[in-house]
Amino acid sequence: MISAELLGFIAGALATSSTIPQLVRIFRLKSAYEISTAFTILLLSGISLWLVYGLYLSLTPVIIWNAIGAGCVATLLFAKLKYGRKP
Amino acid sequence: MISAELLGFIAGALATSSTIPQLVRIFRLKSAYEISTAFTILLLSGISLWLVYGLYLSLTPVIIWNAIGAGCVATLLFAKLKYGRKP
Repeated sequence: MISAELLGFIAGALATSSTIPQLVRIFRLKSAYEISTAFTILLLSGISLWLVYGLYLSLTPVIIWNAIGAGCVATLLFAKLKYGRKP
Repeated sequence: MISAELLGFIAGALATSSTIPQLVRIFRLKSAYEISTAFTILLLSGISLWLVYGLYLSLTPVIIWNAIGAGCVATLLFAKLKYGRKP
C-alpha cells in the first residue's frame, strides 16, 4: 500500500505536467486557434479554488500542484490571447 | 465562511466543466491539430489518480469531479485521435 499523500503527489505531477506539452505545442505552432478561451478561464478559476480547498484542509499535494497548475494555465490563457486568432 | 466541501464542489464544477467548451470547439472545428496528445494522456492519467486519491481519503468532491472529468478528458483524447491530423 502506498500512502495517500504519495498518490496525491503522483496524481498532481501527472495532471499539472500535462499542461507543459500543450504549452510547448502552442508556442511552437504559434497558434492557439483551436484552444477555447472559456476552457482556459474556467480551468484557471477551478484550479485556483482547488488551491483554496487544499489550504482549508491542509492537503499538501493539492496545495502544491494547484499552485503550479494555476501558473501553467495562466500561461496557456496568455498564449490563447497572443496566438488565438485564425491562422 | 463556507464549508470546504462546498468549496470543493464549486472548484470541481469549474475545472471539470472547463473541458465542455473545449470539446465543443474541437467537434465544431473538426480539428484538434493544436491539441497535444501528451497533454490529453497525462491529464487523463493524473485525473484518474486524483480519483483514487479521493477514494482513499473519502473526499466526496474530489471523487465526483474527477470521475466526471476522466470521462470528459477521455472524450478529448478520442477527439484528438479522430481530428488530430494537420488540416
